[in-house]
Amino acid sequence: MATILDGKLVTADLKERMTADVTALKSRGIDPTLAILRVGEKGDAIAYEKGAISRCKTVDVAVRSVVLPETSTTEEVLKAVDELNKDKTVHGVLLLRPLPKTMDEAKIVAALAPEKDIDGITDSSMVGTYTGNISGFDPCTPEACMEILDFFKIDAAGKNAVVVGRSLVVGKPAAMMLLKRNATVTVCHTKTKNLAEICKKADIIIACAGKAGSVGAECFAPNQVVIDVGINVTEDGKLVGDADFAAAEPIVGAITPVPGGVGTVTTSVLVKHVVEAAKRQNP
Amino acid sequence: MATILDGKLVTADLKERMTADVTALKSRGIDPTLAILRVGEKGDAIAYEKGAISRCKTVDVAVRSVVLPETSTTEEVLKAVDELNKDKTVHGVLLLRPLPKTMDEAKIVAALAPEKDIDGITDSSMVGTYTGNISGFDPCTPEACMEILDFFKIDAAGKNAVVVGRSLVVGKPAAMMLLKRNATVTVCHTKTKNLAEICKKADIIIACAGKAGSVGAECFAPNQVVIDVGINVTEDGKLVGDADFAAAEPIVGAITPVPGGVGTVTTSVLVKHVVEAAKRQNP
Repeated sequence: MATILDGKLVTADLKERMTADVTALKSRGIDPTLAILRVGEKGDAIAYEKGAISRCKTVDVAVRSVVLPETSTTEEVLKAVDELNKDKTVHGVLLLRPLPKTMDEAKIVAALAPEKDIDGITDSSMVGTYTGNISGFDPCTPEACMEILDFFKIDAAGKNAVVVGRSLVVGKPAAMMLLKRNATVTVCHTKTKNLAEICKKADIIIACAGKAGSVGAECFAPNQVVIDVGINVTEDGKLVGDADFAAAEPIVGAITPVPGGVGTVTTSVLVKHVVEAAKRQNP
Repeated sequence: MATILDGKLVTADLKERMTADVTALKSRGIDPTLAILRVGEKGDAIAYEKGAISRCKTVDVAVRSVVLPETSTTEEVLKAVDELNKDKTVHGVLLLRPLPKTMDEAKIVAALAPEKDIDGITDSSMVGTYTGNISGFDPCTPEACMEILDFFKIDAAGKNAVVVGRSLVVGKPAAMMLLKRNATVTVCHTKTKNLAEICKKADIIIACAGKAGSVGAECFAPNQVVIDVGINVTEDGKLVGDADFAAAEPIVGAITPVPGGVGTVTTSVLVKHVVEAAKRQNP
């Protein structure tokens, strides 16, 4: 029976750490504020926005939602980004993606002020994640994985960590962050031929391929730690991760649940970044 | 008996590919030119500079050496970089590093025009290597490793590649470039506990820890391809790689020699980048 790595415990701990900072900022007249820039009315984006707003409320971080119509031009979105960049009462900007295909997403991302890029999507943030010399922010989801490891005192140093997935949003940055923690890191993906064999030798598995069951029963071994980033909806409307939880749970040492695992912690990391950005912008 | 992956063959092939481009550029009145910016008189830097100059000569690429005294200020080096950035007759700039510790190397690197950064050291180049969307240039040494794989028709897709070393100059970019080629990539380093076991399972080993013997006899298995990036000088003045060549050669399928392997190809890649930069700057 695996230990369940409950995201709520990590979130509660993060909240406690943030509260002191928020109080200190407010005592100096600074009101840490997240701006969420959404273009259009896509369900995924609205759901993530709602989650971020309610998480911000729990630590008294303000949220300003800026919503532009789906039919906006690149120039109109750039203008909104520019206004948020210049607004000293906004400390972090969350740009909900993907943007409508009619607009130049790369140009819009590049326009975001690096110091407000609390989701680690600009080039300047990515270089920090790649080199390990963070001047901006790491992306929230892989950082949530690291927060879970830290909270449960799972030291990655010298361990074999396998990252299943190589996206820029999760897989690659997770690999870089694990390397920084001195893990030996293997990145697997759809072209990997011996996934089960590789995973079985892992001390830590980060499942982030974005596909239910992509880390299956044949991948698990005793004492492993499984961090499941996947959020997939089954045919009967159930939320499941990438790892086969039912198969893993009797075998591995510890596993994050879905829901209630990485996703829960991710919005907390986002808020932590807003607070950190407010501190950096008001030294 | 392993196949020796002779760098000279790769270099000859690269030369042939470049010559047509150089001829085409010259027929349009464009003289592809590399500027080498060196601060001080360190032996390593001078040796690398000499190698680059003689390689440039073989394909009729011009070289301009700019040498500043060791006692220069950061501002003086920045001024030299700025002049090279603005000079339309210079297509690529090689900044020999490390710079003297008295100067702000990060600031000087950041000042380099990304389109002339033929050694892939600026943030903008590094983002390209990390994301796999190259707009600038990959660093020359790991690209030389890929050129060797390509020349000898070693397809990395679906293979287990192990990178021993995690430097920003070789290990990390090599890992990213192998991922782009659809290899399953493991990055090992000084904190790795089971290096021999991991290496033994590798189809491809990139040895780039920068230490003689760091990939030893216990790491090799039949049919492996060993690409040795190391250039180390033994006590009796012999040049050796990171891999134990004598131990590997009777076991593995193919191995690069040192000298005559990756190092030989690296300067050719540098020149290739100069030619490519000249083409991009004169579309």
